[in-house]
Formats: sequence, C-alpha cells, structure tokens
Amino acid sequence: MQILITGGGGFLGARLARTLLAQGELSLAGQPRKRIETITLTDRAAPPDDLKNDPRVRVVVGDLNDVLASKQVPAAGTDCVFHLAAAVSGECEADFDLGMRSNFAATHALLEACRALGNKPTVVFSSSVAVFGKRPGFEMPDPIQDDTLPTPQSSYGTQKAIGELMMADYGRKGFIRARSVRLMTVSVRPGRPNGAASSFFSGMIREPLAGVRAQVPVGPEVDHPILSPSRTIAAIIRCAEATDAEWGPLTGLNLPALRCSVGEMAKALERVAGPEATALLDWVPDPNILKLVNTWPGNVKSARANALGLTANADFDEVIREYIRENPQAVKLKVR
Amino acid sequence: MQILITGGGGFLGARLARTLLAQGELSLAGQPRKRIETITLTDRAAPPDDLKNDPRVRVVVGDLNDVLASKQVPAAGTDCVFHLAAAVSGECEADFDLGMRSNFAATHALLEACRALGNKPTVVFSSSVAVFGKRPGFEMPDPIQDDTLPTPQSSYGTQKAIGELMMADYGRKGFIRARSVRLMTVSVRPGRPNGAASSFFSGMIREPLAGVRAQVPVGPEVDHPILSPSRTIAAIIRCAEATDAEWGPLTGLNLPALRCSVGEMAKALERVAGPEATALLDWVPDPNILKLVNTWPGNVKSARANALGLTANADFDEVIREYIRENPQAVKLKVR
Repeated sequence: MQILITGGGGFLGARLARTLLAQGELSLAGQPRKRIETITLTDRAAPPDDLKNDPRVRVVVGDLNDVLASKQVPAAGTDCVFHLAAAVSGECEADFDLGMRSNFAATHALLEACRALGNKPTVVFSSSVAVFGKRPGFEMPDPIQDDTLPTPQSSYGTQKAIGELMMADYGRKGFIRARSVRLMTVSVRPGRPNGAASSFFSGMIREPLAGVRAQVPVGPEVDHPILSPSRTIAAIIRCAEATDAEWGPLTGLNLPALRCSVGEMAKALERVAGPEATALLDWVPDPNILKLVNTWPGNVKSARANALGLTANADFDEVIREYIRENPQAVKLKVR
Repeated sequence: MQILITGGGGFLGARLARTLLAQGELSLAGQPRKRIETITLTDRAAPPDDLKNDPRVRVVVGDLNDVLASKQVPAAGTDCVFHLAAAVSGECEADFDLGMRSNFAATHALLEACRALGNKPTVVFSSSVAVFGKRPGFEMPDPIQDDTLPTPQSSYGTQKAIGELMMADYGRKGFIRARSVRLMTVSVRPGRPNGAASSFFSGMIREPLAGVRAQVPVGPEVDHPILSPSRTIAAIIRCAEATDAEWGPLTGLNLPALRCSVGEMAKALERVAGPEATALLDWVPDPNILKLVNTWPGNVKSARANALGLTANADFDEVIREYIRENPQAVKLKVR
C-alpha cells in the first residue's frame, strides 16, 4: 500500500505517519489489511529526522500546488491520501489570497490528481469545526450536528466547506472514496504557536507547564470543542478504515468533541500543575482572535463519529495529562 | 449605473435585460434609484437583435472564462452583476470538466474580477434548487427551508453550492454585496429544449401547445418546485434591490416555488388546452433524467423570499396561461 500525507511535515502529519509506520499495515474501507510499502510526506518543510530516515518514507518538499503541478505527488498507484495541508485560520483571514491558493486551489488540484490516478483512492480530507460560524444577528443551532448547515464566518472555514462539497462530488462520481473529517481544535499541541486563531488553546497549557508566561486572548466564558492529539490521529485512521456503509453520507463528519470553557481549561491546569501554572496566564483580550473565536460553536455533537466507535476525551484533565505523558521534556512545573 | 449580465444571450438573461431597460433605472440595496446607463451582456452567443440594437446595450461574445481573462468584463465602475451564465445540469453530469470550468472556475474568476473593481458591486448569483438532493439511503428534510443543508446529488448542484459559499465569503469580506438566489425550475420556457434535466418541465407544455408531440421522461407522481419566467425575473430584480437588513444572512435564498406534480401539470394542460394537448404527451421514462430529477426536492419553502414580498404562482394553470399570453405566436391549439 502506498500512502500520501499532505502537510506531512506538520505536527499532525508527522504524528499520523509515525502511527501508520508503527502499525505497519492499514485496512481501507473495510478491505483486508495491507502492508504499508511507502508513505510520501509532502510539505513546505521537511519532516523530522526519524521520519526522513525511515526507508518506507519518501519526502517531497514544496508548496502543494507546485508539487502537484510538477506531478511529484501523488505517485502512481497511491491507495490513500490524507490531505492535512492547509493555511491556518488566522493566516487566511489576514491574507485572503493565501487561503484561496493554499486551501481552495490546492484541494481542487489534489482532487484532480487523485481522479487522474484512476484507482479510486481513499481521500481523507481534514475539514474543520470552523465550517460552522455564528452569523452576527442570527441564531446558530445548538448543539451543532453532523448535518447542520455550515455558515462559516472565516475564509478558512469557507475554504474547508468548499473542500467538503468538492470531496462529496468527486466521491459521488466514483473518482475517489471520500472521507471529509471535521477536526475539532487539537489541544494540547506541542512545539511553537502557529497562526491559527485557536493556537492559544494549546499555548495556555503548554507554555505554563514549561514555566513560560502565556496570553489568553479570550474570556473564561468562551466555550470550545477540543480533542486531544492521540484521539484525533486515531479518529483520522478510523475514518480511512470505515466501510462505505459505516461512513454513510459523503458530507462532512464531526469528530468527537469535549465541550470545555476556557475558564474550565484554566481550572484543569491548576488541578494538574497547581496555582504556579495558572499564575503564568495573562488574560489579555485580542480583538483579532476574539473576532474569529466568537463565531465558533462550543457545543458540537458527533453522532456519526460515535457510531464509528470514536469518543471524546472524558475531561480536560485527561487532555493535559496526555500532553505531559507524551512530552515530559517540555514540562518544567511539578505535576500533581 | 452600469450593469453586467452573464448568460446575457440566454432566455433569462435577455428577459432580465429587457425588463431593466424598460424600467430604465434600478435601486441597489436600498440606495436611491439610478438611471441605467449601460447593460453589458456577455454570453457565448449574441443576444437577440432588439437588445443588440439598444444604444444602452454593450455585447461581449465569448466564453466567460475567456472574456474575464482578457478583462473585457466587468467594465470599470460596474455597479451590479447578474451572474446567470452556467452550463446546465444534464451537461455537467455528462461532462464533469465542462461543469467545473463553466460553473466553478468561471464563478471564482468572476468574483475575483468583481473584487478587483474595488467598488463593492452588488452580485446576484443564480444558484439553484439543485443544491438540494436526496441521497440514496438517507432522508431529506421535508419541506426544504432556506437553511436546510445542501446535499447536492449532481455536479451542477455541487458547483452551485460552492458558488454560494464563495459568494458569502466575498460578501463577508466586503469585496462584493452578495445575493445568492436559488432559482426554482423556470417553466414554461419558450424556444427550444436545452441540456438541463429539467428541460421537459417546459417542453411537456410548450410542444403540445404548438401541436407537437413531447416526451415526459418521468412519472406523473414526481413532485417539483416551479416558478414562472415573469415571477423569476421580478424576483431576481427584487433581490438586487433588497437592503442588507432585508436580505439577512449571506447564505442562499430559496425563490418561491409552486409545488406541483407532473401529473397535475398534465391535468392543468388539459384544463387549458383540452385533451388534444395531453394526447400529444408520450410518457417514456428516461433513466438519465430520472436519475437527476428523482434526487430533487418537491416541497420547497421560501420564508426569506416571502418576507421580501415574493410569492409563487397560485397554480400551474397560471403558469401555462402566462406562457400563452406572452408567446401567442407559438400556440397552435385552441385555448379554453
């Protein structure tokens, strides 16, 4: 089996690659498990060394539009594509053309390339909870369900919603096997902040645990849907494995979400790492971040994902403890 | 005021142009009425002579992607664009690339060109009830509302749904004033059949009235949402005139629809033109047409359009009598 991961140099892409390489085989859409021969990782930056050095890994560095145009990816015979590459929400809001190129045009070009493969590859598309947005002056359904009308209030969310529609039609036409997966905010991400408006949901935990001050740009009352990295990766793989009957409609599927307020996240941090941790939080509202975050739903239901056996974290303490367990070198405070 | 009509050589585009030229002025989004200086009609074919000969009409013949790329349209200072150009449903299902080029790429290019105008033009986009589709094995909400999740079951409907999402984001960003209008099936269209799967909804009335046999490719039980040409054109203009507050959310708006079964359409034809008319109908199922028509909803509600003062035809007799009144030369049978 040949696999392509776009955004393969990023946190989720690299982690997905490691998980797939460790399990060594994959079942697609209910077919028998097959050995993974090659995973191609494409991204603007090279992946970490452990991946680069794996003989099963092929690395293609470049802008996704460029590596598609030059036909460096997808390789002939690619069985499965995990399309994780994207410009993130804050970037796309600040630079409309960047988002249209990186998310809209690149997703279309990737789907055309998958269609040209001619073998109906499985395509797992990382959509986002940001397809949902509260429109000023209008009610948003509460809770959000899998089949709630997306009314994105960001260019990022719009581009993801358009990607879902393209995926569904390429799937309906039989060009690909379509799996549009709406990621919740992945927290706690290790490493550095990124340009996503949701970046602080990781930073407000990660930085204090490292003994570093962190800004919380929204109020404690803001409600948000969260899923931890390990559950997000397991869910993405489960979506590739799901049979067509298990998967159901070709519309986007909401991943499971822990509904948690920012205040509750801070309380969980204090339970896990004490008041020394929360003393490092600076509650400084940021209008640019608030503008996007305030449009996102807090209460997201995931009936289809639940039917696939996927569940959310039990509480935010579990989310924090997963990060501490997986990133012990990054934790400087004493954990209870 | 300068106006651009894409698809300006077609039935709806030409009729819209005639209506605008006759009224001589237009109010956009609640602003004072202004004199219409120029209407540019662009299409792959030239418009009828009466339009070509009007000194206020400018004609640009060519593929929409080409005339946009060569910057022949939109003219600097364009205040309002009616984007009616599209490849139709049957064509797009038979030729996927044609639909992606004519509907998806051209709509994106047009929106980019409107953004580049820099004056926030009003853009009225002719979306379609075909954004809604019954997915095999899944319930479709009944009735369809303005905010029902589009689940298109045709490439045409997908491309229209994507157009709506682009429109909403270009509108949200302030690049344009966005008016996405979901047309119902326009019946009775004069002239020749076209490649739309819905073409027979006009043909089964138009041809018998002309004394010509017509095929009905679906069963009498098929329910469908219809709006007559005069009401469709009036509604399109009303949508351009609506203030932002009247318009509401930037998502697509369902035009009013008369819910009518094909059997009831035939009965109305018999009431208006006698059994001589219905004797000319050949009920011959066509699997290709059934495949699309069976996915479309019959029962469509239009709360937002109704709030703009727009209403559906009272019954299908009214629809037929509008056609007879407007196209007396095309009617050979005796009308009661």
